[in-house]
Amino acid sequence: MRGRFITLEGVEGCGKSTQSRRLVERLERGGRRVLAAREPGGTAAAEAVRRILLDPAHEGLSAETELLLVTAARADHVRRVLEPALADGVSVVCDRFSDSTRAYQGAGRGLEAEVVEAVDLVARGGLQPDATLLLDIPAELGLERARSRNHEGGDSSQSRIDDEDLAFHRRVRSGFLRLAKLEPRRVWVIDASGDPDDVEQRVVRALDRALPGLLGGGEG
Amino acid sequence: MRGRFITLEGVEGCGKSTQSRRLVERLERGGRRVLAAREPGGTAAAEAVRRILLDPAHEGLSAETELLLVTAARADHVRRVLEPALADGVSVVCDRFSDSTRAYQGAGRGLEAEVVEAVDLVARGGLQPDATLLLDIPAELGLERARSRNHEGGDSSQSRIDDEDLAFHRRVRSGFLRLAKLEPRRVWVIDASGDPDDVEQRVVRALDRALPGLLGGGEG
Repeated sequence: MRGRFITLEGVEGCGKSTQSRRLVERLERGGRRVLAAREPGGTAAAEAVRRILLDPAHEGLSAETELLLVTAARADHVRRVLEPALADGVSVVCDRFSDSTRAYQGAGRGLEAEVVEAVDLVARGGLQPDATLLLDIPAELGLERARSRNHEGGDSSQSRIDDEDLAFHRRVRSGFLRLAKLEPRRVWVIDASGDPDDVEQRVVRALDRALPGLLGGGEG
Repeated sequence: MRGRFITLEGVEGCGKSTQSRRLVERLERGGRRVLAAREPGGTAAAEAVRRILLDPAHEGLSAETELLLVTAARADHVRRVLEPALADGVSVVCDRFSDSTRAYQGAGRGLEAEVVEAVDLVARGGLQPDATLLLDIPAELGLERARSRNHEGGDSSQSRIDDEDLAFHRRVRSGFLRLAKLEPRRVWVIDASGDPDDVEQRVVRALDRALPGLLGGGEG
């Protein structure tokens, strides 16, 4: 039986990485075979593309260049890692996927939705998440969290993205929320502004409704 | 006055690099400001993408991944280098451009022409060559030349491409020739099977017809 494809989305600092890790651990405890993934990245070529995107030396990449780079990384990741895993019955929890491209390069950087969709379709082929968890927080809070994390010695290579302005992050958040309205059966909006334990409980409740039986070792 | 944008195209080993260099020198001797360019590459990010494409460690990239990578490099090159140069009155001689994407990822690797066109359009924006010189040789001869060049200590990083089979290179050549038939006013087919000096004379004659006055210091 094919694995389930679950994506986590949201603005910088929304807690995706923490919640992805906790979800993977929960699935493993339930006896599921599960792969923890993250975009852009996941293959040697995709990680090389990620380094281009995050390298401050390349500051000033156009929206079009960003779109083509993130989707190039996705095309490799989908074909070499995600599709084979899913076909093998492994479920995948992926930190960012196509919705991030729609929200960042589309809503955030102003590329037309149709252009983003057409290019992203080349990258993902027919692959669609079975469920998407949108961890929603105000853009201000997300930026604040991301900045304090970086100052604590986190991944300083993210500084390029964190230097973008607040208006940009507000557009991205609105873009995510719009996607949730367009596809309410796939995209679950989760209040991610509180304590990570509380957010985790909301994630579990949403997944129990989105993919009944997946958690808790049912027949899902 | 805007510079002229001239592209050189053809299969591996057709002599593009030699003819590009000679054409740039000829334009400079005629008093033109000219930029020698090559794709994929031309910016720091685009050169990083080129390294991904040519690195044998990434062997097995899908056609879709290749398409998105080469167009990502193009998007950066067009916006940071080609468009500013042309707008500044500098003419550009570029070794490979969109026609290579159509021929290699389209005809060669089998992606639909409409898909290649849509993605490439995102990359190049409105930019079109004023003239394209297609250096045409049989695929066998091109492969033979490229292989002997690499064995002489040339760029060994090109081995990935040279290991592709002859049938592939025949499809690529046919793809180029089809493009020339579709756009005969832009794409000039040049017999590139002979001596480099002879080929150069054919290039000059074609350019004199394509862009009268460009060579020889006329009013262009």
